Amino acid sequence: MSLLVVGSVAFDAIKTPYGKVERVLGGAASHFAVAASFFTQVRVVAVVGDDFTEKEEQVFRARNIDMTGIAREKGKSFFWAGEYGDNVNEAHTLDTQLGVFADFKPKIPASYMDSKYLFLANIDPVLQVNVRRQMNGVKFVGGDTMNYWINGSRAQLGEMLRVVDSLLINDTEAKMLAEEPSLPRAAQKILKMGPKALVIKHGEYGSTVFFEEGTYGVGRHPFRAPSLPIEKVIDPTGAGDCFAGGFMGYIASQDKLTRDVFKRAMFYGGVMGSFAVEAFGNERLRSLTREEIEDRYKLFCELTHIE
Amino acid sequence: MSLLVVGSVAFDAIKTPYGKVERVLGGAASHFAVAASFFTQVRVVAVVGDDFTEKEEQVFRARNIDMTGIAREKGKSFFWAGEYGDNVNEAHTLDTQLGVFADFKPKIPASYMDSKYLFLANIDPVLQVNVRRQMNGVKFVGGDTMNYWINGSRAQLGEMLRVVDSLLINDTEAKMLAEEPSLPRAAQKILKMGPKALVIKHGEYGSTVFFEEGTYGVGRHPFRAPSLPIEKVIDPTGAGDCFAGGFMGYIASQDKLTRDVFKRAMFYGGVMGSFAVEAFGNERLRSLTREEIEDRYKLFCELTHIE
Repeated sequence: MSLLVVGSVAFDAIKTPYGKVERVLGGAASHFAVAASFFTQVRVVAVVGDDFTEKEEQVFRARNIDMTGIAREKGKSFFWAGEYGDNVNEAHTLDTQLGVFADFKPKIPASYMDSKYLFLANIDPVLQVNVRRQMNGVKFVGGDTMNYWINGSRAQLGEMLRVVDSLLINDTEAKMLAEEPSLPRAAQKILKMGPKALVIKHGEYGSTVFFEEGTYGVGRHPFRAPSLPIEKVIDPTGAGDCFAGGFMGYIASQDKLTRDVFKRAMFYGGVMGSFAVEAFGNERLRSLTREEIEDRYKLFCELTHIE
Repeated sequence: MSLLVVGSVAFDAIKTPYGKVERVLGGAASHFAVAASFFTQVRVVAVVGDDFTEKEEQVFRARNIDMTGIAREKGKSFFWAGEYGDNVNEAHTLDTQLGVFADFKPKIPASYMDSKYLFLANIDPVLQVNVRRQMNGVKFVGGDTMNYWINGSRAQLGEMLRVVDSLLINDTEAKMLAEEPSLPRAAQKILKMGPKALVIKHGEYGSTVFFEEGTYGVGRHPFRAPSLPIEKVIDPTGAGDCFAGGFMGYIASQDKLTRDVFKRAMFYGGVMGSFAVEAFGNERLRSLTREEIEDRYKLFCELTHIE
């Protein structure tokens, strides 16, 4: 069923130990949408400048992504320049130019209103809550955030946490949000803030989902999904967004949200993240097939399953 | 079948955010032996001082561990004092007194010579190689090391790597040994140094085994085992040694070493490590039952398996 993502569409300049690119399509919503499009119909709400051309549109169109909600404004699209050293989990930001994204006020097209799944990518929690309030018919809402909002907009973020079903963040963000150095304890604190499930992305170590007691089945045991040990991480940018795209896309493709669906969604998230890092920008995902996804999903099972 | 471990038996003073102990039985060989004793017959080669009393002997005896190879010397046993802060993966050493361990020359009793499994705990690689050379009839040899030997005894360590089947180290040690910041690349480099399998312990993120191509079955896909997200890590000391004990103990209990046995050994290693941190010293393992081990093994499967 239709999955709506609200977030940034941007241009990135990226340097990694394997090379550099001056200008590739980026932004959380772009990465998310392309990854999710392998599983379900995706709709995007974002804003771009007049530097967003036919070439970029083609990326979305090729994946059958609905662009009705991508607003065009006069000016430049969001631009980010960053560099990675030996630690692929840590980006050094060299430049950020918000451009038309500075005044982003998400407008949801009438044709999107029947979306049953919603992902609030990393934007101002005030905007996230505003979007969430307009989408009363949704079945499941995922959300992301970052240290900037955790440190600067705690009250607004608190409200956002009460209106998402599942929060997807990384280890550092979880510890910061909970003000707690132990990850399992941080997870329990965050679950008390609102979400029924907390997905923590550990980068090269995979991911863990912590459930509110009794949610999506019995018990509160967490579940761990692997990531693929990759010798050449060409470009880690967007891997977390592609994880979220695979995760939400798979959930949106299923009739019911059971604990088993949640587990498989964690695996598909890891699978999409593992493809994302194999090339700059979303180059790898643009040539990807559903068959390759299923093959890697099987590999993820072999990586973790006994017998 | 019988499993021989060579390493340290010590007394530890430990402080963690959950309390402190002035003097508990520690040392890699102690932790390893107690953990492995739940799976197979264990024999120890170590040295202790005259402060090692009936009380400590009782710990080994209760687990039916063969102490024939524990030499008694005049003087004090190895003593280590350390402290952990919020980061349970990092111990701050406050005091180290080698005592009789300074002159440790492992002597293997005649009755140990038919041991089919051998674990070379973290001691001088010269001694590790010496022990290995005396045990020609072994089927499988595991080994551990640490930054001290990686930095200071590289040539000797190189020789040790050529005489072990499986090396068990942590992330930091693997990157240091391979002089390579990427863990998957470091793993491939280390496999070229000798071992057929490299087990990397990631602490709270579990562990990964990397296989030499074609070893223990087809392909060279790694395998990942989880660790349990534990809210109260009372004392992390010895968790890595208990992992090794569970891992080697399980392998020694099986007729054949197949890829499936290796996978289950990784899970049992994680299980024993997860119990170890629940109390100071080896207190938790002393009251443990095989049934509790099997229950947690099942939990580890639930934590990672789909369907």
